[in-house]
Amino acid sequence: MTAQLLGGKELAQKIKAQVAADVRNLDGGRPTLAVVVATDDDAAHWYVRSIASAAGKAGINCRIVDLGAGASQANLEAELVSLAEDAGVHGLILQTPLPPGVSTAQLVGLIPPEKDVDGANPVSLGRLAVGEPSFAPATARSVVELLDHHGIPVSGRYVAVVGRSAVVGKPLAHLLLQRDATVTVCHSRSVPLARFTQPADIVVVAAGRVRLLNSEHVAPGAVVVDVGTHVLPDGSLAGDADEASLSEVASALSPVPGGVGSVTTALLLLHTVEACRQHVAAGVLA
Amino acid sequence: MTAQLLGGKELAQKIKAQVAADVRNLDGGRPTLAVVVATDDDAAHWYVRSIASAAGKAGINCRIVDLGAGASQANLEAELVSLAEDAGVHGLILQTPLPPGVSTAQLVGLIPPEKDVDGANPVSLGRLAVGEPSFAPATARSVVELLDHHGIPVSGRYVAVVGRSAVVGKPLAHLLLQRDATVTVCHSRSVPLARFTQPADIVVVAAGRVRLLNSEHVAPGAVVVDVGTHVLPDGSLAGDADEASLSEVASALSPVPGGVGSVTTALLLLHTVEACRQHVAAGVLA
Repeated sequence: MTAQLLGGKELAQKIKAQVAADVRNLDGGRPTLAVVVATDDDAAHWYVRSIASAAGKAGINCRIVDLGAGASQANLEAELVSLAEDAGVHGLILQTPLPPGVSTAQLVGLIPPEKDVDGANPVSLGRLAVGEPSFAPATARSVVELLDHHGIPVSGRYVAVVGRSAVVGKPLAHLLLQRDATVTVCHSRSVPLARFTQPADIVVVAAGRVRLLNSEHVAPGAVVVDVGTHVLPDGSLAGDADEASLSEVASALSPVPGGVGSVTTALLLLHTVEACRQHVAAGVLA
Repeated sequence: MTAQLLGGKELAQKIKAQVAADVRNLDGGRPTLAVVVATDDDAAHWYVRSIASAAGKAGINCRIVDLGAGASQANLEAELVSLAEDAGVHGLILQTPLPPGVSTAQLVGLIPPEKDVDGANPVSLGRLAVGEPSFAPATARSVVELLDHHGIPVSGRYVAVVGRSAVVGKPLAHLLLQRDATVTVCHSRSVPLARFTQPADIVVVAAGRVRLLNSEHVAPGAVVVDVGTHVLPDGSLAGDADEASLSEVASALSPVPGGVGSVTTALLLLHTVEACRQHVAAGVLA
């Protein structure tokens, strides 16, 4: 068997085209996404530039607020409070990593749920969990959209999610439960991992460990979605799944790069337009 | 095999004794729990009276605010806002069922997280999910405390939770993940149910269906925790687990009545004292 590739580029283009059309149809000005950065990390800066570039092409303003790697908790808090109150900002993202000693938990609590387009505030996660309107983290939603796009149903199926982070594993579990999947959340203490992933129809790996998941962990015919992205010493990219080993066992596999990651930025823009539309609607009602 | 009974009464007494001792040691007045009721349902009134009685014995004021079965959304909102602002109220519970047409989701959002001693506000669930301080729903916490009390470890074990409600299944999944269990959340679309519960070391059933879980669903030696309580036509009580069938297969089983339900009220009181203590501490700091 050679696994079907679950590419994300076509889906990303489709979402971006939808975003551009939505922006043109918006009454009430251009959507604006603000991204707060406080790091020297190259990968983070590359990612933020890629968001800004995609935003520009779709007609969305992207305001990058770079406070530098020396930013304090107080600097970051003041900036987030200001952007939270700024009626001209519709989406608000706090880019990681943050300077040492800074409390991420306290900062993400300052992002108003209606601007929290990357689902970073625990309030957004709580609303997501109970089915109230909220933005899911873009990466978590990407997994579900990628499966949808490739016609892979999740209702009634057994999905193992490897990873219990607040930004991927946990919100993804809630998104999948909403769609009637039976969901197992695995993590570093799930030993042996194969005990929990072998029985699954679909395995999503978001553990942040290079090539953690291999053919010994999944049943023949399983679908594997890879959320990880790692830069190897030779400069190439790899995921949390061992593509070479899994492609002979899995029925379908999302590539890295070109899979989940391709869709994430498009969904951030989609969330930003949605936030802008809700802002305009609330203004009309007010 | 005859299953060990995982009784909750001894644990409940222990927690209540702890609560009474904590109340005596509090500087700054008596903890107060407010319970808002708007129903004619006998079981709900019985439950609220049992909370008030247990509170009184532990030295906690219980203020029952009965708005009647005809209460409107506006009545309920006004009462909750008033109790939320009342500095003399430390814990706040909205008893279900509520009158037809009333939006529970909107009402629980009015309970401030610091008074949300039964974890009803989605904000509390979000905080619980990311490990920030919050009150878990008392029933969800009861399951974990009952396992602890009987020396049954959850770390590294496979726990199947049957039921995905916002008040039990979902918060319980997060409590168990925090303790390093691998957690599967099952529900009505998990078919056949045994596919997901057979492999588990521990099965918690919180599905709200009389005797849903039987010996065919669990592996020999599994631990079963029963969260359900149903009044049968003959007036006797039954749980979501079929005790007669499971007691020959499971290694341990929580009874109904006398299991999880016995612990819930004690934990509500414990949360109320904790809320009062935090209120006093915040006042000292202010």
